[in-house]
Amino acid sequence: MTRMTNFFRFVLAAFAAAAFVSCCSESTSVIRTQTPERPAGQEDMIGYASPAIDTVRVGFVGVGARGKDAVRRFHEVPWSKVAAICEVTQDRADSALSYLGRAVENPQSPRVYVGPEAYRELCASPDIDLVYICTDWLHHVPVALCAMENGKHAAIEVPSALTLQDCWDLVNASERTRKHCVILENCCYDFFELSALELARQGLLGEIVHAEGAYHHNLDPYWDKYKDDWRLQYNAAHKGDLYPTHGLGPVAQVLGINRGDRFTTLVAMETAAIAGPQTYKRLRGKECDSFQNGDLTCTLLQTERERSVLIEHDVLTPRPYNRMYQLVGTKGYAAKYPVQQIFLAQEVSDSIGLGYDTRGGHREYPKEYVDKLREMYPHPVLDAELEEAAKRVGGHGGMDYIMDYRLIYCLHYGLPVDMDVYDLASWCCLAELGSISIKAGCAPVEVPDFTRGGYLKRQGMKYAFRDGSFR
Amino acid sequence: MTRMTNFFRFVLAAFAAAAFVSCCSESTSVIRTQTPERPAGQEDMIGYASPAIDTVRVGFVGVGARGKDAVRRFHEVPWSKVAAICEVTQDRADSALSYLGRAVENPQSPRVYVGPEAYRELCASPDIDLVYICTDWLHHVPVALCAMENGKHAAIEVPSALTLQDCWDLVNASERTRKHCVILENCCYDFFELSALELARQGLLGEIVHAEGAYHHNLDPYWDKYKDDWRLQYNAAHKGDLYPTHGLGPVAQVLGINRGDRFTTLVAMETAAIAGPQTYKRLRGKECDSFQNGDLTCTLLQTERERSVLIEHDVLTPRPYNRMYQLVGTKGYAAKYPVQQIFLAQEVSDSIGLGYDTRGGHREYPKEYVDKLREMYPHPVLDAELEEAAKRVGGHGGMDYIMDYRLIYCLHYGLPVDMDVYDLASWCCLAELGSISIKAGCAPVEVPDFTRGGYLKRQGMKYAFRDGSFR
Repeated sequence: MTRMTNFFRFVLAAFAAAAFVSCCSESTSVIRTQTPERPAGQEDMIGYASPAIDTVRVGFVGVGARGKDAVRRFHEVPWSKVAAICEVTQDRADSALSYLGRAVENPQSPRVYVGPEAYRELCASPDIDLVYICTDWLHHVPVALCAMENGKHAAIEVPSALTLQDCWDLVNASERTRKHCVILENCCYDFFELSALELARQGLLGEIVHAEGAYHHNLDPYWDKYKDDWRLQYNAAHKGDLYPTHGLGPVAQVLGINRGDRFTTLVAMETAAIAGPQTYKRLRGKECDSFQNGDLTCTLLQTERERSVLIEHDVLTPRPYNRMYQLVGTKGYAAKYPVQQIFLAQEVSDSIGLGYDTRGGHREYPKEYVDKLREMYPHPVLDAELEEAAKRVGGHGGMDYIMDYRLIYCLHYGLPVDMDVYDLASWCCLAELGSISIKAGCAPVEVPDFTRGGYLKRQGMKYAFRDGSFR
Repeated sequence: MTRMTNFFRFVLAAFAAAAFVSCCSESTSVIRTQTPERPAGQEDMIGYASPAIDTVRVGFVGVGARGKDAVRRFHEVPWSKVAAICEVTQDRADSALSYLGRAVENPQSPRVYVGPEAYRELCASPDIDLVYICTDWLHHVPVALCAMENGKHAAIEVPSALTLQDCWDLVNASERTRKHCVILENCCYDFFELSALELARQGLLGEIVHAEGAYHHNLDPYWDKYKDDWRLQYNAAHKGDLYPTHGLGPVAQVLGINRGDRFTTLVAMETAAIAGPQTYKRLRGKECDSFQNGDLTCTLLQTERERSVLIEHDVLTPRPYNRMYQLVGTKGYAAKYPVQQIFLAQEVSDSIGLGYDTRGGHREYPKEYVDKLREMYPHPVLDAELEEAAKRVGGHGGMDYIMDYRLIYCLHYGLPVDMDVYDLASWCCLAELGSISIKAGCAPVEVPDFTRGGYLKRQGMKYAFRDGSFR
């Protein structure tokens, strides 16, 4: 066969392909979602700064395992006061107070609200500035809405919203009440994530074209610890990635989502539910023949600037903990799990005088070069004092404390918060949108623009500082 | 809000979701592909065994970088003879002979065919049993078709087919001529992949619900080595995962694709092409404003048994080499990159007396336990003699030799080959199907059943042995 006939064969093949595809359309068949019009008189919250608060008085709703540790940390966060706690039963409130008495030196004595509706009283109380919500998932949104309606800022544990209705309710409440609605995505403040974000912000990775994140965490040891079994029940009742933000939050910040780019389309695929029903039966002693959540769910997101993001969810199979966290740039690469990896194009390494020769192969930088990069490009939030405090106070290795500190710092100085209600909605909407995609045979689904056009007002992830700068 | 009203709120939300979705159908909108009817008188090749061949006489078409190393290895493969080589120019043939003269002790003197159409003479020669094809991608299929039409078995380097037309042409040719058409997917024979496959085959990982594979290999140092720039040109001209089988082959074997399960649906997403055009300009000195292949392509596949597979392709960004290779099972986990990880549920570890306590956390097994597992569950193909020979002869650490050995072993003893034409087609069709999905806005695309219903004839990946057993 000559070169020419071979070429001809390929031209033919290009046409012939149509013979094997009965419904191949160049146009998309995306499932459209609706963006409700912004109510009259309501403005966006992009870059919104609320009046400075000298001492931020915090009311904690839900002081179980996660909440009581938040209270413990807040005893060490400057410019704040643990004003109140709220629990559904006296037992749980007592347990938290007892833990705090043991855990915290000179604990302040917070006011205590008890009862399933007691959070309403807490939210209505005039001496609270911020309602910090660590309830079960089903109460995240009702409590946050109640807080904002009562003129309080709201901070919500993840996943802060589970449905599109939740997302829009929170967006509208924040815009209407002019109160911050913050997603408490602690993984955005982990040390490696902050370092890698800084490399990306400095352009060392080139254009980030793809990113990955995940929540791979076998919850077998924990299912029994959730009151009334709410967590396993929720997994049994819903499809989609129910816990997307540990993976998505940090990479969305790198991509500047809601800050120059936005998610436009999503497709999701799930596996059969096998480990799920097995877990259910082992723990509950009865069959669950309608377990909804697949053992593993993959979601692919596309952004307007044609970057892609892969997010995975697996809380049921036995495997090492892994949040994936991976940045793929045209000039460099960063990944955190299962081992930290940094790789820069030789030209970048040369331009910053790093002195590492990548030409020897495809191996990641040795640890000393990663450490050197971290020293050369410190994240502006992470000064020595904060890093020391974070490591001392702890909370998942310190990231919880950095998150709390930044939240209070911004409220104290009257600055825009790092993670606003649009971040919350853009990250959390994955769950229901993925479920829609899965139920429609992995069809592409439109991701709403929760900023309603405002995502171009800012460019790139920046942090507000007391001197008025954004870095 | 009482528990009841909160519950009510959620029931409402479930209905309200419809308000935000304008076109959410429970039915799928999969792009259908057509499966041509099997021509009359033609039978499938499932489990087909050709007559035993005492000494397999091999003709090598394409003896550039990859091909000449194959010839070198074949001087060490038992029951075979390097009968002929074929190249497009005398220079290239001489270069290969010179390399072989240096690399191989007592080299046999193969017959040499030279010229762009000389492969036809090689294929027509009566003293050849197997045509081993290491040409550029565009000649893989024409040469293989020519070989089979001339009554020779064909073995094709990857990617062995680039279009649906290619896949069906090879399937039909193999079925019609009763000749094997083998995909030379060497990664199926790498040591870790074989070990993990064996753990899966023994049921130690439970039901495999998800698997991953990739080709992350920055080809910057290699683009210039391809004659007439064919590889970069092909990437510039085509969308989709153009090199899927290193990632897909090994995990498809684990899932028993074409052996009890099959791929049914695929969705693909690509990033913008940024590194691609930059690479093109740097190497060619001119702009390519229509570079087709995204810098990174993700493909998600669903199987009939509701398992999912993620395959990634990235040959353009600077990053560490990575084939991902990951198995997620209901009882255990295996991953190869960037570090080898094995994790088994405690009940499995206990049942086999491994003595490793996973309850301490979410960390993978230490290396000594991985090694112990490998000793406890050796892959049947990998006996000590073969392992020694593989490490001595080499070829990507030995896997190339194991692949060649198994191919010749099966032909010599007249056994079904490990990787048949259906594997070839099922793995290679990813490229065009992904391109179709991408061009249709990440729409789901039906994956054809190249076995035309025969995928249930066998259950699970098994290897044929000279004693007639399948293990």
